[in-house]
Amino acid sequence: MSNENSLLQEINQVMQNAGTAFTAYQKTKPEARALFLESIANNIESLGDALLAKTSEETNLPLPRLTGERGRTTMQLRMFAQMLREGSWVEATVDTAIPDKTPPKPDIRKMLIPMGPVVVFGASNFPYAYSTAGGDTASALAAGCTVVVKAHPGHLQTSAMIAGAIEAAVKSSGMPANTFQHVTDASFEAGKALVQHPETAAVGFTGSYTGGKALYDYAAARKNPIPVFSEMGSINPVIFLPDTLAKNAENLAKQYAASITMGAGQFCTNPGLLIAMEGDGLYNFLQNLAVEMSAIAPAKMLHAGIHKAYYTKMQDALDQQGVKLLSKSNTTPAALEALPSIATVDGATFLQDPLLHEEVFGPYSLMVICKDSNELKAVWKSLAGQLTTTLMGTDQDFADNESLLDIAPTIAGRILFNGVPTGVEVCASMVHGGPFPASTDGRFTAVGINAVKRWVRPVCYQNCPDHLLPDALKNANPLGIWRLVDNVWMKG
Amino acid sequence: MSNENSLLQEINQVMQNAGTAFTAYQKTKPEARALFLESIANNIESLGDALLAKTSEETNLPLPRLTGERGRTTMQLRMFAQMLREGSWVEATVDTAIPDKTPPKPDIRKMLIPMGPVVVFGASNFPYAYSTAGGDTASALAAGCTVVVKAHPGHLQTSAMIAGAIEAAVKSSGMPANTFQHVTDASFEAGKALVQHPETAAVGFTGSYTGGKALYDYAAARKNPIPVFSEMGSINPVIFLPDTLAKNAENLAKQYAASITMGAGQFCTNPGLLIAMEGDGLYNFLQNLAVEMSAIAPAKMLHAGIHKAYYTKMQDALDQQGVKLLSKSNTTPAALEALPSIATVDGATFLQDPLLHEEVFGPYSLMVICKDSNELKAVWKSLAGQLTTTLMGTDQDFADNESLLDIAPTIAGRILFNGVPTGVEVCASMVHGGPFPASTDGRFTAVGINAVKRWVRPVCYQNCPDHLLPDALKNANPLGIWRLVDNVWMKG
Repeated sequence: MSNENSLLQEINQVMQNAGTAFTAYQKTKPEARALFLESIANNIESLGDALLAKTSEETNLPLPRLTGERGRTTMQLRMFAQMLREGSWVEATVDTAIPDKTPPKPDIRKMLIPMGPVVVFGASNFPYAYSTAGGDTASALAAGCTVVVKAHPGHLQTSAMIAGAIEAAVKSSGMPANTFQHVTDASFEAGKALVQHPETAAVGFTGSYTGGKALYDYAAARKNPIPVFSEMGSINPVIFLPDTLAKNAENLAKQYAASITMGAGQFCTNPGLLIAMEGDGLYNFLQNLAVEMSAIAPAKMLHAGIHKAYYTKMQDALDQQGVKLLSKSNTTPAALEALPSIATVDGATFLQDPLLHEEVFGPYSLMVICKDSNELKAVWKSLAGQLTTTLMGTDQDFADNESLLDIAPTIAGRILFNGVPTGVEVCASMVHGGPFPASTDGRFTAVGINAVKRWVRPVCYQNCPDHLLPDALKNANPLGIWRLVDNVWMKG
Repeated sequence: MSNENSLLQEINQVMQNAGTAFTAYQKTKPEARALFLESIANNIESLGDALLAKTSEETNLPLPRLTGERGRTTMQLRMFAQMLREGSWVEATVDTAIPDKTPPKPDIRKMLIPMGPVVVFGASNFPYAYSTAGGDTASALAAGCTVVVKAHPGHLQTSAMIAGAIEAAVKSSGMPANTFQHVTDASFEAGKALVQHPETAAVGFTGSYTGGKALYDYAAARKNPIPVFSEMGSINPVIFLPDTLAKNAENLAKQYAASITMGAGQFCTNPGLLIAMEGDGLYNFLQNLAVEMSAIAPAKMLHAGIHKAYYTKMQDALDQQGVKLLSKSNTTPAALEALPSIATVDGATFLQDPLLHEEVFGPYSLMVICKDSNELKAVWKSLAGQLTTTLMGTDQDFADNESLLDIAPTIAGRILFNGVPTGVEVCASMVHGGPFPASTDGRFTAVGINAVKRWVRPVCYQNCPDHLLPDALKNANPLGIWRLVDNVWMKG
């Protein structure tokens, strides 16, 4: 038997297992699932410093950063446990019968149910929060879907340790065998087979455009296409308006030098594109930014592949006609370290050069200098879909540039005012996603409790005897959840 | 210039217009949009009997049916107007800042916003309710999207009259020019160009698998794929359980003969597949059903193409090995009339013959006779995704067949008990959609106020000055809508 056949057999077995487990797992009660998620969080914490040390070894990420990310990951798991207990996420909707209407109105009750086994492809840059027990896994398990994680080859041992923590929780919580499965084969073929397997109901991915788009295409080519939520990063354009540049150049430069170089620029929300109108304010800001950038020490990137890609993509950008290096770090980078750097280009050149619209993953940003506000708007609107876009301005700036407020929502899923896009708060109002290619489906978010909505679909019951209804839809509302009953929200 | 070039230029102009109009239309206030939708409903009613007569001429549908469908269409428009006034559909979510958290938690506020111009392909079998001013158009206009309708060639003049009613409402309500546009070119190329135009943000379709899947594929092949909601019909399996067959054979036969033949079987919810276990109860029911079907007079189908396809597909099914004609109408059909008929096949044969799983659009149904409950479950689970599935049974039946309750939600978007799937109530709890190929995205419904969710995406504002926020997110809640504020639902 060829290796490929053996791989396909293995994937087939994994997905069959996931399908069998789903039949039982989808029926688990909200409280049981909540305890299961909390148990995963506890088990991850119990891995202690050994986990942090192993991950730091595999990813070059420093311990304080990893400690923070671990906290975010366990917090996410507990947040979904809380969501399950609160219960309104199922969008229970009840329309009672009106027998004397013509024709008679039947009793109809709707709720969200899990779609089936979900395949998760984790991210290299978030070995915890967007990986094996990250947001995709947590939201899918919360939804009632079984999960198959394809381990990221950049942190295989970390992924195995986390998988062990989840598997232990499956057992101790009495969840069905294979509620969670871990696949370590890193091949292209494994990914394709996982996405195209008939048992696979949906796919979550965080990573590069190339990877995420390939999975989307595999899913769309299935006999029965399935939803794919690929979060593929973006260049997160930031607009600096004149009045704030005139008044706050020094602080803005500090703030943005830090954001551009944070974590060696390895965030999908890294501000890769700055946009402003020419003028003394801008030149003063650029001078400050150049000084700040030159003082920032290079940091190690995740692995050799990302490091090489950073230098290649940055050099490609710098080689474009009209692009000028503004500043780079004064410190010579050691092995695997990325040189923080910043360049400038004029608006007209940027508009004509698609290469400059592409992400350079690392501590690099490009300032587009526009001749007026029309060119600034044209530059902004020329961009593909983004995760975030940011407006830096004073009240005076916003009053002077009101039309920017209308454009912003068409650009991105998250619009920031006078802040930096790096840092994604985990809360109900967060939108992490955006128009293609920021994500493959801008109708959903990958962060916050609404991330669960990617893995569920509505089903309604018409004239179902009360005792046969799911608890969420029973007359007595035994779960005590908020429901829309005859068009009125109530908990009674 | 070739015809194709001229077509592409026309489509390009239409979509550019839709994009320009969207910029203004998305900013209209909820009350203005509500009045606009109500004005469309009023204008359709003002078309009076002339509209009904023209549609009956074009579609062969009888006047009482069209009168009912017109009522449903104007009701839908008014329902979305009501949804706009109530306002909670935007899912406004507010998380206020916690400045002394480490790191400080920013103020984040989320709501749903329209995606952009929506292209609607109407259905032949619902010239009002799923066509020019049907559910897709009404929900998209409610969402704040501009709409381009490709008129169905089966009722071009009806479509033009309705388009006139909408365009008059655009003017009288002061909506931007080209908020709604009507394209009459019926070519394949026009559909493809509309779906693939860069300004098109989403697509709604109701009709055949071939048509809906083609649009899905066009959209997936775009440089930036867009959501397509194609509702492509299904065979709506109905399970008859032993105790109800033993007790209610006569009534069940009457009820189902009527549902199978209603509107010449031209409903996407037509019960095209009946499933039961062999036994005296079933044979008695089949005898009754045979008598009922033979007494039902043929009715005219929508047009010659559908009529021809009905006879071809039905004959293909009847020609399959093991399929037996049980009964047909005693009345010889006139031109364009469809012969009501019903056939039987055993479970094992059905499982091996994919052709029998396909929809025969018209007044035809196939009864699958299973040897036991395992075969019944196997037949049910072998089906592709469905809009509806129905369980006919007594309390005793459901107690004896508990496992069916677990399977039902995996089959369809709507599960009925002791009723017929024809007839789709328009209400908040309705789910009209289902796993592929019932629809291309089972996460959404095409009927009820939640149909609006197909055309919107979330956007969040981080640290946005209050006066720059959309009304739905302002501190004072000037729209007075239900919002999730710091994880608590409130209206204050």
